[in-house]
Amino acid sequence: MNGNRFIPPHGAFTRTVHIRFSHCDPAGIVYFPHYFNMINGLIEDWYTEELMVNYADLILHDQYGFPFVHVETDFKIPSRMGEKIDLTLLIENVGRSSLKLIIIGHHDGIERLRARTVTAMMSLESRRSVELPAALRQAFEAYAVKTSTD
Amino acid sequence: MNGNRFIPPHGAFTRTVHIRFSHCDPAGIVYFPHYFNMINGLIEDWYTEELMVNYADLILHDQYGFPFVHVETDFKIPSRMGEKIDLTLLIENVGRSSLKLIIIGHHDGIERLRARTVTAMMSLESRRSVELPAALRQAFEAYAVKTSTD
Amino acid sequence: MNGNRFIPPHGAFTRTVHIRFSHCDPAGIVYFPHYFNMINGLIEDWYTEELMVNYADLILHDQYGFPFVHVETDFKIPSRMGEKIDLTLLIENVGRSSLKLIIIGHHDGIERLRARTVTAMMSLESRRSVELPAALRQAFEAYAVKTSTD
Amino acid sequence: MNGNRFIPPHGAFTRTVHIRFSHCDPAGIVYFPHYFNMINGLIEDWYTEELMVNYADLILHDQYGFPFVHVETDFKIPSRMGEKIDLTLLIENVGRSSLKLIIIGHHDGIERLRARTVTAMMSLESRRSVELPAALRQAFEAYAVKTSTD
Repeated sequence: MNGNRFIPPHGAFTRTVHIRFSHCDPAGIVYFPHYFNMINGLIEDWYTEELMVNYADLILHDQYGFPFVHVETDFKIPSRMGEKIDLTLLIENVGRSSLKLIIIGHHDGIERLRARTVTAMMSLESRRSVELPAALRQAFEAYAVKTSTD
Repeated sequence: MNGNRFIPPHGAFTRTVHIRFSHCDPAGIVYFPHYFNMINGLIEDWYTEELMVNYADLILHDQYGFPFVHVETDFKIPSRMGEKIDLTLLIENVGRSSLKLIIIGHHDGIERLRARTVTAMMSLESRRSVELPAALRQAFEAYAVKTSTD
Repeated sequence: MNGNRFIPPHGAFTRTVHIRFSHCDPAGIVYFPHYFNMINGLIEDWYTEELMVNYADLILHDQYGFPFVHVETDFKIPSRMGEKIDLTLLIENVGRSSLKLIIIGHHDGIERLRARTVTAMMSLESRRSVELPAALRQAFEAYAVKTSTD
Repeated sequence: MNGNRFIPPHGAFTRTVHIRFSHCDPAGIVYFPHYFNMINGLIEDWYTEELMVNYADLILHDQYGFPFVHVETDFKIPSRMGEKIDLTLLIENVGRSSLKLIIIGHHDGIERLRARTVTAMMSLESRRSVELPAALRQAFEAYAVKTSTD
């Protein structure tokens, strides 16, 4: 459980989360499923605040869903009640209907956790995956370029 | 499920919470136990940001607990994903070891929910209730005076 | 935080819940919002296993909702990881569209918590409360009679 | 999101979970972090009921922790309120202080999700990883042999 150094690329979307009593287990550290709530909240805020796409409307009005089809996470350093950690979102890949994200939890320049997620865009009516709408794809690709470290 | 008007008293501690996908149920509204997480988070922030008492230290370092011994809540108007609601904390009573709080969830001047909570201060070592330390009692009483509507 | 004695009335619906790591907080006891998940699960099982009414169908197929409009709970004795507690459901009142329940958490004949809940039946389409269907009302009333302690 | 066929090996530890209202999101399917609670509960029950090791005592009395250091999951078929799914636990590898598990969620012989988890045994006092005690290692290895499909 070692943490590498991590400095977010310029322009990367980062939000700070408070580690709360409600997140922590009898061992005094974050019970890991709560990290996925934090990650889901980060993705919501990224749509709404960075991409300027209203995530709630996409689901409630446009009847799209974004189920997670794959999640993998390395938990490197535990976090404790009262701490604040930063979560940074990066794009790994934009597919036909899927989006691969990397979310890094970090504090003082040290990684605490690193998640890779794959979500697929689907229609809640047909229950089938749908091609990413052009505007959404462009927003994803612009963010990927903006935050590229190459 | 009607909501009365609510304007927080001057000086009252209020924080805004985002209603997220993770809070909402198949009926599209907040699943009620999540409100208690929001309320617990509000109380934490009130200790730390308003009373200038580090809530995490009280628990992890000083080994105090603040279990809820009573909670009652009227859920007046449901909230939906994408909304932001304000939570305001008021003191109803300061006892020997107990604290009665009122938390009002509101939006645009209309109450959405109103909770009354009673927490007791206890020692995590002896597992018994303890008298509120003088500094904490004074902080509670000062806040109660400051936000009194009488 | 004293617990009274509690013996469920004959015929009362009781289910045992395991207190798990995921329920417990840094103080080593159940974090209170989890009790409401347990209570909600008990109510679901009561519909399905006792009243022989498929709760999932009522919501997903018939498009009814049963939002909580009032919840009050006394937390009398904390519970710890590894314990098993019994939850018993009793009816306090059957209204036009509302149902008042009492849920008692107990262990070895001693109460650990006692909750009173009020749910209202509503249409998910009209978003308005609806009168309890006759079959459901009869099922509620039969259960109330069967478990009456008078 | 296709599900392969899955038949648990003879002797494998399997528990059924009810998909509840509280697990489901506005799209009507399980919100994915809840699966990790189910998986954690399965692991607890496996220790206690299959390995005859009291998991709560290991943590509360012996002061060991079993933090997840890696989790990866493929979500293949969504599950809905009212369904019951089976979770089966298999061992992938037993390390010096680590344990790699595979948990398969399935229904009617079809996989719904497949998770691989790595937990490390640590001392809650020293906050360092510890070598698996011999009795625990033997229990793990006996289970791995018993459920081997080779």
